[in-house]
Amino acid sequence: MYRLYHSPGACSLAVHIVLEEIGLPYEAEIRSAKNGEGTTTPDYLALNPKGRVPALSGVPGSAGGAANLLTEAPAILFFLAASHPDCRLMPADPAGRARCLEWMNWLSGTLHGMGYGQLWRPQRVVTDTALYDAVKSAGLEIINAAHDHIEHVLSDGRDWAVPGQYTIVDAYLVVFWLWGGRIGLDMETAWPLWARLMRTVLARPAVREALAQERLA
Amino acid sequence: MYRLYHSPGACSLAVHIVLEEIGLPYEAEIRSAKNGEGTTTPDYLALNPKGRVPALSGVPGSAGGAANLLTEAPAILFFLAASHPDCRLMPADPAGRARCLEWMNWLSGTLHGMGYGQLWRPQRVVTDTALYDAVKSAGLEIINAAHDHIEHVLSDGRDWAVPGQYTIVDAYLVVFWLWGGRIGLDMETAWPLWARLMRTVLARPAVREALAQERLA
Repeated sequence: MYRLYHSPGACSLAVHIVLEEIGLPYEAEIRSAKNGEGTTTPDYLALNPKGRVPALSGVPGSAGGAANLLTEAPAILFFLAASHPDCRLMPADPAGRARCLEWMNWLSGTLHGMGYGQLWRPQRVVTDTALYDAVKSAGLEIINAAHDHIEHVLSDGRDWAVPGQYTIVDAYLVVFWLWGGRIGLDMETAWPLWARLMRTVLARPAVREALAQERLA
Repeated sequence: MYRLYHSPGACSLAVHIVLEEIGLPYEAEIRSAKNGEGTTTPDYLALNPKGRVPALSGVPGSAGGAANLLTEAPAILFFLAASHPDCRLMPADPAGRARCLEWMNWLSGTLHGMGYGQLWRPQRVVTDTALYDAVKSAGLEIINAAHDHIEHVLSDGRDWAVPGQYTIVDAYLVVFWLWGGRIGLDMETAWPLWARLMRTVLARPAVREALAQERLA
Protein backbone atom coordinates (compact mmCIF):
# COMPACT_ATOMS: atom_id res chain seq x y z
CA MET A 1 0.00 0.00 0.00
CA TYR A 2 1.22 3.49 -0.83
CA ARG A 3 1.93 5.92 2.00
CA LEU A 4 1.93 9.62 1.18
CA TYR A 5 3.99 11.98 3.30
CA HIS A 6 2.37 15.35 2.86
CA SER A 7 1.67 18.79 4.32
CA PRO A 8 -1.86 20.22 3.94
CA GLY A 9 -1.97 22.81 1.18
CA ALA A 10 1.60 22.14 0.03
CA CYS A 11 2.43 20.88 -3.46
CA SER A 12 1.83 17.39 -2.06
CA LEU A 13 -1.85 18.22 -2.58
CA ALA A 14 -1.45 17.27 -6.25
CA VAL A 15 -0.35 13.76 -5.29
CA HIS A 16 -3.18 13.55 -2.77
CA ILE A 17 -5.66 14.41 -5.53
CA VAL A 18 -4.21 11.76 -7.84
CA LEU A 19 -4.35 9.10 -5.12
CA GLU A 20 -8.03 9.93 -4.72
CA GLU A 21 -8.51 9.74 -8.50
CA ILE A 22 -7.01 6.24 -8.50
CA GLY A 23 -9.34 5.19 -5.72
CA LEU A 24 -7.24 2.45 -4.10
CA PRO A 25 -6.63 2.47 -0.32
CA TYR A 26 -3.54 4.43 0.75
CA GLU A 27 -2.08 5.84 3.94
CA ALA A 28 -1.44 9.54 4.45
CA GLU A 29 0.97 10.90 7.05
CA ILE A 30 1.11 14.60 7.73
CA ARG A 31 4.60 16.09 7.87
CA SER A 32 4.19 19.82 8.26
CA ALA A 33 6.37 21.78 5.86
CA LYS A 34 5.63 24.99 7.81
CA ASN A 35 9.07 26.08 9.01
CA GLY A 36 10.14 22.49 8.33
CA GLU A 37 8.45 21.34 11.57
CA GLY A 38 7.67 17.86 10.31
CA THR A 39 10.14 17.56 7.45
CA THR A 40 13.47 18.26 9.17
CA THR A 41 13.13 15.88 12.12
CA PRO A 42 15.82 13.17 12.42
CA ASP A 43 13.38 10.36 11.66
CA TYR A 44 12.10 12.06 8.52
CA LEU A 45 15.57 12.99 7.27
CA ALA A 46 16.62 9.34 7.67
CA LEU A 47 13.69 8.45 5.43
CA ASN A 48 14.06 11.37 3.01
CA PRO A 49 17.37 13.26 3.20
CA LYS A 50 15.88 16.04 1.08
CA GLY A 51 13.58 16.96 3.97
CA ARG A 52 10.66 17.84 1.73
CA VAL A 53 7.17 16.74 0.86
CA PRO A 54 5.66 15.05 -1.06
CA ALA A 55 7.26 11.65 -0.72
CA LEU A 56 5.59 8.34 -1.53
CA SER A 57 6.61 5.00 -0.06
CA GLY A 58 5.90 1.69 -1.71
CA VAL A 59 7.89 2.39 -4.91
CA PRO A 60 10.80 0.11 -5.96
CA GLY A 61 14.32 1.56 -5.95
CA SER A 62 15.76 4.48 -4.05
CA ALA A 63 17.38 7.87 -4.53
CA GLY A 64 19.49 8.01 -1.41
CA GLY A 65 16.86 7.69 1.33
CA ALA A 66 14.66 4.80 2.36
CA ALA A 67 14.78 2.02 -0.20
CA ASN A 68 11.20 2.34 -1.37
CA LEU A 69 10.66 6.10 -1.13
CA LEU A 70 10.04 8.25 -4.19
CA THR A 71 10.48 12.06 -4.06
CA GLU A 72 9.83 15.02 -6.39
CA ALA A 73 6.18 15.79 -7.12
CA PRO A 74 6.41 15.39 -10.92
CA ALA A 75 8.11 12.00 -10.56
CA ILE A 76 5.46 10.79 -8.10
CA LEU A 77 2.60 12.05 -10.29
CA PHE A 78 4.12 10.31 -13.32
CA PHE A 79 4.64 7.09 -11.38
CA LEU A 80 1.04 6.94 -10.17
CA ALA A 81 -0.40 7.72 -13.59
CA ALA A 82 1.88 5.25 -15.38
CA SER A 83 1.19 2.52 -12.81
CA HIS A 84 -2.57 2.85 -13.13
CA PRO A 85 -3.19 3.27 -16.87
CA ASP A 86 -6.86 2.32 -16.54
CA CYS A 87 -7.41 5.58 -14.63
CA ARG A 88 -6.38 7.54 -17.74
CA LEU A 89 -4.53 10.27 -15.87
CA MET A 90 -1.93 10.70 -18.60
CA PRO A 91 -1.74 10.02 -22.36
CA ALA A 92 -0.26 6.65 -23.32
CA ASP A 93 2.07 7.88 -26.08
CA PRO A 94 5.60 9.25 -25.52
CA ALA A 95 4.78 12.71 -26.88
CA GLY A 96 1.68 13.11 -24.69
CA ARG A 97 3.61 11.99 -21.63
CA ALA A 98 6.46 14.36 -22.52
CA ARG A 99 3.93 17.21 -22.71
CA CYS A 100 2.89 16.38 -19.14
CA LEU A 101 6.54 16.39 -18.06
CA GLU A 102 7.22 19.65 -19.89
CA TRP A 103 4.45 21.32 -17.85
CA MET A 104 5.47 19.71 -14.57
CA ASN A 105 9.19 20.35 -14.83
CA TRP A 106 8.49 24.02 -15.47
CA LEU A 107 5.84 24.29 -12.73
CA SER A 108 8.17 22.59 -10.27
CA GLY A 109 11.38 24.41 -11.19
CA THR A 110 10.23 27.87 -12.22
CA LEU A 111 6.86 28.64 -10.60
CA HIS A 112 7.37 26.64 -7.39
CA GLY A 113 11.17 26.48 -7.02
CA MET A 114 12.04 30.01 -8.09
CA GLY A 115 8.80 31.95 -7.62
CA TYR A 116 7.44 30.55 -4.36
CA GLY A 117 10.91 29.46 -3.23
CA GLN A 118 11.94 33.11 -3.22
CA LEU A 119 8.64 34.45 -1.84
CA TRP A 120 8.13 31.95 0.97
CA ARG A 121 11.65 30.56 1.59
CA PRO A 122 14.11 33.40 0.93
CA GLN A 123 16.53 31.66 3.30
CA ARG A 124 17.03 29.07 0.57
CA VAL A 125 18.24 31.79 -1.79
CA VAL A 126 20.39 34.11 0.35
CA THR A 127 21.80 33.96 3.87
CA ASP A 128 21.63 37.67 4.73
CA THR A 129 18.19 38.41 6.20
CA ALA A 130 18.53 42.05 5.09
CA LEU A 131 18.14 40.82 1.50
CA TYR A 132 14.95 38.85 2.08
CA ASP A 133 12.57 41.61 0.96
CA ALA A 134 14.37 42.04 -2.37
CA VAL A 135 14.36 38.30 -2.97
CA LYS A 136 10.66 38.00 -2.05
CA SER A 137 9.70 40.89 -4.28
CA ALA A 138 11.51 39.34 -7.26
CA GLY A 139 9.84 36.02 -6.45
CA LEU A 140 6.43 37.64 -6.76
CA GLU A 141 7.39 38.95 -10.20
CA ILE A 142 8.38 35.44 -11.27
CA ILE A 143 5.02 34.13 -10.05
CA ASN A 144 3.06 36.73 -12.00
CA ALA A 145 5.09 36.09 -15.16
CA ALA A 146 4.54 32.34 -14.77
CA HIS A 147 0.79 32.88 -14.41
CA ASP A 148 0.86 34.89 -17.64
CA HIS A 149 2.64 31.98 -19.34
CA ILE A 150 0.00 29.53 -18.13
CA GLU A 151 -2.73 31.78 -19.54
CA HIS A 152 -0.81 32.06 -22.83
CA VAL A 153 -0.52 28.29 -23.19
CA LEU A 154 -4.24 27.88 -22.50
CA SER A 155 -5.12 30.56 -25.08
CA ASP A 156 -5.06 28.18 -28.07
CA GLY A 157 -8.51 26.92 -27.13
CA ARG A 158 -7.44 23.68 -25.48
CA ASP A 159 -9.81 21.99 -23.05
CA TRP A 160 -7.20 20.72 -20.57
CA ALA A 161 -3.58 21.62 -19.79
CA VAL A 162 -2.50 18.81 -22.10
CA PRO A 163 -5.18 18.83 -24.84
CA GLY A 164 -7.64 16.00 -25.07
CA GLN A 165 -7.97 14.70 -21.54
CA TYR A 166 -7.73 15.49 -17.83
CA THR A 167 -4.19 14.70 -16.66
CA ILE A 168 -1.93 14.88 -13.64
CA VAL A 169 -0.97 18.37 -14.88
CA ASP A 170 -4.48 19.69 -14.23
CA ALA A 171 -4.24 18.29 -10.69
CA TYR A 172 -0.84 19.94 -10.22
CA LEU A 173 -2.22 23.28 -11.45
CA VAL A 174 -4.76 23.22 -8.58
CA VAL A 175 -1.87 23.74 -6.15
CA PHE A 176 -0.69 26.91 -7.85
CA TRP A 177 -4.22 28.18 -8.35
CA LEU A 178 -4.86 27.97 -4.61
CA TRP A 179 -1.46 29.45 -3.75
CA GLY A 180 -2.13 32.46 -5.98
CA GLY A 181 -5.32 33.14 -4.06
CA ARG A 182 -3.53 32.63 -0.76
CA ILE A 183 -1.00 35.37 -1.54
CA GLY A 184 -3.80 37.74 -2.50
CA LEU A 185 -3.68 37.72 -6.30
CA ASP A 186 -6.99 38.31 -8.07
CA MET A 187 -6.80 35.03 -9.91
CA GLU A 188 -10.26 35.03 -11.53
CA THR A 189 -9.82 38.46 -13.09
CA ALA A 190 -6.18 38.29 -14.11
CA TRP A 191 -6.14 34.79 -15.62
CA PRO A 192 -9.66 33.91 -16.84
CA LEU A 193 -8.75 30.91 -19.01
CA TRP A 194 -6.93 29.30 -16.12
CA ALA A 195 -9.93 30.15 -13.91
CA ARG A 196 -12.28 28.39 -16.32
CA LEU A 197 -10.11 25.27 -16.35
CA MET A 198 -9.94 25.27 -12.55
CA ARG A 199 -13.72 25.46 -12.21
CA THR A 200 -13.96 22.19 -14.11
CA VAL A 201 -11.13 20.55 -12.19
CA LEU A 202 -12.28 21.71 -8.74
CA ALA A 203 -15.70 20.13 -9.39
CA ARG A 204 -14.22 16.64 -9.71
CA PRO A 205 -15.13 14.38 -6.78
CA ALA A 206 -11.53 13.29 -6.21
CA VAL A 207 -10.34 16.89 -6.07
CA ARG A 208 -13.12 17.85 -3.67
CA GLU A 209 -12.28 14.89 -1.45
CA ALA A 210 -8.56 15.70 -1.27
CA LEU A 211 -9.30 19.36 -0.54
CA ALA A 212 -11.75 18.37 2.20
CA GLN A 213 -9.22 16.04 3.81
CA GLU A 214 -6.67 18.88 3.84
CA ARG A 215 -9.34 21.29 5.17
CA LEU A 216 -8.96 23.53 2.14
CA ALA A 217 -12.53 23.30 0.88
CA MET B 1 13.51 14.65 -38.52
CA TYR B 2 14.26 16.12 -35.10
CA ARG B 3 15.91 19.53 -34.87
CA LEU B 4 17.75 20.39 -31.68
CA TYR B 5 18.11 24.02 -30.68
CA HIS B 6 21.13 24.12 -28.42
CA SER B 7 24.02 26.15 -27.03
CA PRO B 8 27.44 24.47 -26.78
CA GLY B 9 28.18 23.41 -23.22
CA ALA B 10 24.70 24.32 -21.95
CA CYS B 11 22.33 21.74 -20.45
CA SER B 12 21.24 21.04 -24.04
CA LEU B 13 24.42 18.93 -24.20
CA ALA B 14 22.49 16.12 -22.49
CA VAL B 15 19.95 16.06 -25.32
CA HIS B 16 22.76 16.21 -27.87
CA ILE B 17 24.36 13.14 -26.25
CA VAL B 18 21.07 11.24 -26.33
CA LEU B 19 20.48 12.09 -29.98
CA GLU B 20 23.93 10.63 -30.72
CA GLU B 21 23.07 7.54 -28.64
CA ILE B 22 19.95 7.01 -30.74
CA GLY B 23 21.96 7.34 -33.92
CA LEU B 24 19.28 8.59 -36.30
CA PRO B 25 19.93 11.68 -38.45
CA TYR B 26 18.95 14.97 -36.79
CA GLU B 27 19.55 18.66 -37.30
CA ALA B 28 21.28 20.87 -34.75
CA GLU B 29 20.92 24.64 -34.67
CA ILE B 30 23.11 26.67 -32.34
CA ARG B 31 21.26 29.32 -30.33
CA SER B 32 23.80 30.84 -28.00
CA ALA B 33 22.51 31.10 -24.44
CA LYS B 34 25.45 33.38 -23.55
CA ASN B 35 23.74 36.60 -22.48
CA GLY B 36 20.71 35.30 -24.35
CA GLU B 37 22.31 36.25 -27.69
CA GLY B 38 20.60 33.52 -29.67
CA THR B 39 17.67 32.70 -27.40
CA THR B 40 16.00 36.09 -26.98
CA THR B 41 15.80 37.11 -30.64
CA PRO B 42 12.28 37.77 -32.01
CA ASP B 43 12.37 34.73 -34.29
CA TYR B 44 13.39 32.40 -31.48
CA LEU B 45 10.87 33.81 -29.01
CA ALA B 46 8.13 33.25 -31.61
CA LEU B 47 9.23 29.62 -31.74
CA ASN B 48 9.88 29.22 -28.00
CA PRO B 49 8.43 31.96 -25.76
CA LYS B 50 10.53 30.68 -22.85
CA GLY B 51 13.66 31.88 -24.65
CA ARG B 52 15.77 28.96 -23.49
CA VAL B 53 17.59 25.91 -24.78
CA PRO B 54 17.26 23.01 -25.24
CA ALA B 55 14.21 22.80 -27.46
CA LEU B 56 13.41 19.97 -29.86
CA SER B 57 11.18 20.30 -32.90
CA GLY B 58 9.38 17.40 -34.48
CA VAL B 59 7.30 16.45 -31.43
CA PRO B 60 3.46 16.43 -31.57
CA GLY B 61 1.57 18.98 -29.47
CA SER B 62 2.65 22.33 -28.12
CA ALA B 63 3.16 24.22 -24.88
CA GLY B 64 2.49 27.72 -26.10
CA GLY B 65 5.16 28.11 -28.79
CA ALA B 66 5.54 26.49 -32.19
CA ALA B 67 3.13 23.61 -32.60
CA ASN B 68 5.74 20.87 -32.68
CA LEU B 69 8.34 22.23 -30.25
CA LEU B 70 9.13 20.50 -26.96
CA THR B 71 10.98 22.34 -24.17
CA GLU B 72 12.46 21.46 -20.73
CA ALA B 73 15.51 19.19 -20.80
CA PRO B 74 13.99 16.39 -18.66
CA ALA B 75 10.87 16.26 -20.86
CA ILE B 76 12.96 16.08 -24.04
CA LEU B 77 15.24 13.38 -22.61
CA PHE B 78 12.21 11.34 -21.54
CA PHE B 79 10.57 11.77 -24.95
CA LEU B 80 13.62 10.58 -26.86
CA ALA B 81 14.18 7.59 -24.57
CA ALA B 82 10.49 6.60 -24.60
CA SER B 83 10.24 6.99 -28.39
CA HIS B 84 13.26 4.79 -29.05
CA PRO B 85 12.88 1.88 -26.61
CA ASP B 86 15.29 -0.31 -28.58
CA CYS B 87 18.10 2.06 -27.53
CA ARG B 88 17.51 1.14 -23.88
CA LEU B 89 18.15 4.61 -22.51
CA MET B 90 15.56 4.27 -19.75
CA PRO B 91 13.93 1.36 -17.86
CA ALA B 92 10.63 0.16 -19.27
CA ASP B 93 8.68 -0.06 -15.98
CA PRO B 94 6.90 2.88 -14.31
CA ALA B 95 9.08 2.79 -11.18
CA GLY B 96 12.33 2.81 -13.15
CA ARG B 97 11.11 5.67 -15.30
CA ALA B 98 9.98 7.55 -12.19
CA ARG B 99 13.49 7.14 -10.73
CA CYS B 100 14.86 8.82 -13.86
CA LEU B 101 12.35 11.65 -13.47
CA GLU B 102 13.13 11.99 -9.75
CA TRP B 103 16.79 12.59 -10.62
CA MET B 104 16.07 14.89 -13.53
CA ASN B 105 13.46 17.06 -11.82
CA TRP B 106 15.88 17.65 -8.96
CA LEU B 107 18.88 18.25 -11.22
CA SER B 108 16.84 20.69 -13.33
CA GLY B 109 15.12 22.54 -10.49
CA THR B 110 17.65 22.50 -7.66
CA LEU B 111 21.16 22.11 -9.08
CA HIS B 112 20.58 23.93 -12.38
CA GLY B 113 17.67 26.26 -11.62
CA MET B 114 18.65 27.37 -8.14
CA GLY B 115 22.38 26.67 -7.96
CA TYR B 116 23.60 27.72 -11.39
CA GLY B 117 20.65 30.05 -11.88
CA GLN B 118 21.89 32.08 -8.93
CA LEU B 119 25.59 31.76 -9.76
CA TRP B 120 25.41 32.54 -13.47
CA ARG B 121 22.11 34.41 -13.84
CA PRO B 122 21.58 36.44 -10.64
CA GLN B 123 19.43 38.81 -12.67
CA ARG B 124 16.79 36.09 -12.72
CA VAL B 125 16.67 36.14 -8.92
CA VAL B 126 16.92 39.82 -7.93
CA THR B 127 16.80 43.11 -9.80
CA ASP B 128 19.26 45.13 -7.70
CA THR B 129 22.78 44.55 -9.07
CA ALA B 130 24.22 45.37 -5.63
CA LEU B 131 22.79 42.05 -4.41
CA TYR B 132 24.32 39.90 -7.15
CA ASP B 133 27.38 38.85 -5.14
CA ALA B 134 25.27 37.59 -2.23
CA VAL B 135 23.00 35.68 -4.60
CA LYS B 136 25.96 34.16 -6.46
CA SER B 137 27.68 33.13 -3.25
CA ALA B 138 24.55 31.37 -2.00
CA GLY B 139 24.21 29.71 -5.42
CA LEU B 140 27.67 28.22 -5.04
CA GLU B 141 26.65 26.77 -1.67
CA ILE B 142 23.59 25.16 -3.27
CA ILE B 143 25.83 23.64 -5.97
CA ASN B 144 28.23 22.16 -3.44
CA ALA B 145 25.38 20.73 -1.35
CA ALA B 146 23.82 19.23 -4.48
CA HIS B 147 27.13 17.59 -5.41
CA ASP B 148 27.25 16.08 -1.92
CA HIS B 149 23.75 14.70 -2.45
CA ILE B 150 24.76 13.13 -5.77
CA GLU B 151 27.73 11.46 -4.06
CA HIS B 152 25.44 10.25 -1.25
CA VAL B 153 23.00 8.65 -3.68
CA LEU B 154 25.85 6.90 -5.50
CA SER B 155 27.27 5.59 -2.19
CA ASP B 156 25.01 2.51 -2.07
CA GLY B 157 27.25 0.76 -4.57
CA ARG B 158 25.09 1.28 -7.63
CA ASP B 159 26.68 1.06 -11.07
CA TRP B 160 24.69 3.82 -12.77
CA ALA B 161 22.62 6.79 -11.54
CA VAL B 162 19.52 4.60 -11.84
CA PRO B 163 20.80 1.12 -10.90
CA GLY B 164 21.06 -1.56 -13.56
CA GLN B 165 21.62 0.32 -16.78
CA TYR B 166 22.95 3.46 -18.44
CA THR B 167 20.13 5.98 -18.71
CA ILE B 168 19.37 9.53 -19.78
CA VAL B 169 20.21 10.54 -16.19
CA ASP B 170 23.86 9.58 -16.66
CA ALA B 171 23.93 11.71 -19.81
CA TYR B 172 22.34 14.62 -17.91
CA LEU B 173 24.94 14.27 -15.12
CA VAL B 174 27.71 14.92 -17.68
CA VAL B 175 26.47 18.51 -17.96
CA PHE B 176 26.83 19.18 -14.25
CA TRP B 177 30.14 17.34 -14.05
CA LEU B 178 31.61 19.64 -16.72
CA TRP B 179 30.05 22.75 -15.17
CA GLY B 180 31.62 21.92 -11.80
CA GLY B 181 35.04 21.81 -13.42
CA ARG B 182 34.33 25.01 -15.32
CA ILE B 183 33.67 26.95 -12.09
CA GLY B 184 36.89 25.61 -10.60
CA LEU B 185 35.67 22.90 -8.22
CA ASP B 186 38.06 19.99 -7.65
CA MET B 187 35.53 17.46 -8.86
CA GLU B 188 37.73 14.33 -8.87
CA THR B 189 38.87 14.82 -5.28
CA ALA B 190 35.65 16.02 -3.70
CA TRP B 191 33.21 13.59 -5.30
CA PRO B 192 35.10 10.38 -6.22
CA LEU B 193 32.06 8.12 -6.78
CA TRP B 194 30.59 10.61 -9.21
CA ALA B 195 34.05 10.86 -10.84
CA ARG B 196 34.16 7.10 -11.32
CA LEU B 197 30.73 7.07 -12.94
CA MET B 198 31.70 9.92 -15.25
CA ARG B 199 34.85 8.14 -16.43
CA THR B 200 32.64 5.33 -17.69
CA VAL B 201 30.10 7.66 -19.26
CA LEU B 202 32.64 9.98 -20.88
CA ALA B 203 34.21 6.97 -22.62
CA ARG B 204 31.00 6.20 -24.52
CA PRO B 205 31.32 6.91 -28.27
CA ALA B 206 28.07 8.93 -28.36
CA VAL B 207 29.21 11.12 -25.47
CA ARG B 208 32.60 11.69 -27.08
CA GLU B 209 30.94 12.59 -30.38
CA ALA B 210 28.56 15.14 -28.80
CA LEU B 211 31.41 16.70 -26.81
CA ALA B 212 33.55 16.93 -29.94
CA GLN B 213 30.75 18.60 -31.90
CA GLU B 214 30.38 21.16 -29.11
CA ARG B 215 34.19 21.58 -28.96
CA LEU B 216 34.27 20.47 -25.32
CA ALA B 217 36.54 17.45 -25.75
